[in-house]
Amino acid sequence: MISKKMKPLVNNNSVIRQMFEEGQKMAAEFGAENVFDFSLGNPNVPAPKEVNEAIIDIVTNDNPVKVHGYMSNMGFPETRKAVADSLNKRFGTEFDLNNIIMTVGAGSAINVILKTMLDPGDEVICLAPYFVEYGNYIRNYDGIPVVITANPEGNFMPRFDELREKITPNTKALIINNPNNPTGVVYPEAVIKELASILNDKQREYGTVIYLISDEPYRELAYGNVEVPFLTKYYANTIVGYSFSKSMSLPGERIGYIVIPKESDGAEEFTEAATIANRISGSVNAPSLMQLVIERCIDAKCEVEYYERNGRTLYDALTKMGFSCVEPQGAFYLWMKSPVEDEKAFVDKAKEFNILMVPGSSFAGPGYVRLSYCVSYEQIKRSLPKFEELAKIYF
Amino acid sequence: MISKKMKPLVNNNSVIRQMFEEGQKMAAEFGAENVFDFSLGNPNVPAPKEVNEAIIDIVTNDNPVKVHGYMSNMGFPETRKAVADSLNKRFGTEFDLNNIIMTVGAGSAINVILKTMLDPGDEVICLAPYFVEYGNYIRNYDGIPVVITANPEGNFMPRFDELREKITPNTKALIINNPNNPTGVVYPEAVIKELASILNDKQREYGTVIYLISDEPYRELAYGNVEVPFLTKYYANTIVGYSFSKSMSLPGERIGYIVIPKESDGAEEFTEAATIANRISGSVNAPSLMQLVIERCIDAKCEVEYYERNGRTLYDALTKMGFSCVEPQGAFYLWMKSPVEDEKAFVDKAKEFNILMVPGSSFAGPGYVRLSYCVSYEQIKRSLPKFEELAKIYF
Repeated sequence: MISKKMKPLVNNNSVIRQMFEEGQKMAAEFGAENVFDFSLGNPNVPAPKEVNEAIIDIVTNDNPVKVHGYMSNMGFPETRKAVADSLNKRFGTEFDLNNIIMTVGAGSAINVILKTMLDPGDEVICLAPYFVEYGNYIRNYDGIPVVITANPEGNFMPRFDELREKITPNTKALIINNPNNPTGVVYPEAVIKELASILNDKQREYGTVIYLISDEPYRELAYGNVEVPFLTKYYANTIVGYSFSKSMSLPGERIGYIVIPKESDGAEEFTEAATIANRISGSVNAPSLMQLVIERCIDAKCEVEYYERNGRTLYDALTKMGFSCVEPQGAFYLWMKSPVEDEKAFVDKAKEFNILMVPGSSFAGPGYVRLSYCVSYEQIKRSLPKFEELAKIYF
Repeated sequence: MISKKMKPLVNNNSVIRQMFEEGQKMAAEFGAENVFDFSLGNPNVPAPKEVNEAIIDIVTNDNPVKVHGYMSNMGFPETRKAVADSLNKRFGTEFDLNNIIMTVGAGSAINVILKTMLDPGDEVICLAPYFVEYGNYIRNYDGIPVVITANPEGNFMPRFDELREKITPNTKALIINNPNNPTGVVYPEAVIKELASILNDKQREYGTVIYLISDEPYRELAYGNVEVPFLTKYYANTIVGYSFSKSMSLPGERIGYIVIPKESDGAEEFTEAATIANRISGSVNAPSLMQLVIERCIDAKCEVEYYERNGRTLYDALTKMGFSCVEPQGAFYLWMKSPVEDEKAFVDKAKEFNILMVPGSSFAGPGYVRLSYCVSYEQIKRSLPKFEELAKIYF
């Protein structure tokens, strides 16, 4: 009774659902405190207190018909102006409210962007390992994901030679995710410049427009002095999809935005089409109360240092035990080499120690596993003796 | 730079945007109180006070990591249980939480339902006049809208003979909207029974499954003793898309749900596929805080009597002036016959009196206009002398 396109998704879904159910079952059997679930990217640091203060103030003092009502499909003008002003202040850009569309999180932002630009058969490049949903998002609009293979020997930076080869006249976009899920690395300025130069060359060579879609749910989650380049400054045809899910710990609220810079090709028409795509996809508009909250709290941030300490603790301990990990620079993921080639066998073995992690194949990165360390510091500490036992099997 | 599918949407969009901009311009020129905007379906009755009370209580007392966090893509189990229990109590159904998926409003609910079921070329029947977005929603998944013509002489009830003829082996679904946008009528039990009987006959004849998609944003907005039949009780393959946008005046918050009854064909697989569709469409889940609000306020309602008085006042006054209107039974729309064949000319003429309404062609109902009376009672009273002047031109 379901469509041919949904069929394989239902069949594949069982793996992830199985892991979720296993986690629940384990928690019931062994007690939640004895299960070390590193599988989910659900922030555990609370939203900054400004968020709840703003919510209470708004529903107490503002007109409920406005607070909970429809507005333009682009979002409240005040919220879009606050977003533009904040970006300009931080990155020296020159956006105004007309460059911003508020969306139902980054998931919806990326879908709206792809719906706006993709014709069936258009190719969209993803840099492995990558967030598994990109493939689904691209196929939603009958686009074709083209994958650049992972580059473990180069700290998972993009393989430029392969990229040059795989860009064709059908390439409509490249999706970049910085800081990166699942590797936790940040692409530095030099990498972004090289990427922009390749895309510009190919645009000239083919006489096409190639968009750089910057998926930025982790933008504020960079550690220490690591700088995350803001991509519209390096490449004119950049379209940004942002989410407050991680920076403000609001993943369930579904609030984010799209940036369409005026220097991008056909910006005005693109903005109008994206606004319509936002509407007809069923979102209609980003949740209204949360838009008003963002207007007031635009520069509030959750406690990034919490994640940094988690990442550092896990990285130090696991590498000491003999595991080989990518040093985390941002996001809240640790990307670890499986000590055996088949990482699914390793994931299964870890389950015997009540440790849950995601096989790299789910991110087009076989041979690795992803650990989400957006968990309590206590869980990390408690998990270490278990990892120790696990390590002893392999090293 | 935009896709071929979005191109015509951008071109058509200018009409609606133009009307919105005209309204803004008029308000600036003549003062908002002298512009009688009946074009938008944006509720003007505030949300029931329980809503804001619940919001404050939740953000004050509950764990922010839960309140603003991810949950299962189906939604919080407590919220889904509250929805199921409320439906069971009101309609004598037997749902449990596994029959309910929380969504980003009804717009998203209908999109998720269509994405779940439609293969390219599948036909979906709409009963004219109908909500213009259905066509866009159906085409999102390469379905084909099939329109049953309007039935003005039969108070806009469905034309059963035409329906029988137009159901083919490719018919995947029929969308029904009760109470109806734009006519304001309610299809009574006898009509629903006849509809169910036709669909059952055709399922048998073709050996296919034909879904009845019940789009229910106006379910609670029925006046006086008018009963709105609950469709899963009349037809097994009914899938419901509901929204709290109008019943609780929360349109901007984007909160609604899907009901998939267990007696519907392939219910289990359909539910799993719809949950995935909800995720990969980018919604991921319905906004979390609003889900918790719904759990607590499930039976709260905005002041429906306000709309009833508006509708009655407008209907009585306009028919007295000589206009021919459909008597409103629900929703907050008045469907009025244009006194000239080309209703767009009539809409233009009305603008000269600062009256804004939507031409029926926007709903596949030419020759009529739609007036949204979700406005202040004062606006209605103030508009009547202007309507009087307008009427004098024609009668």
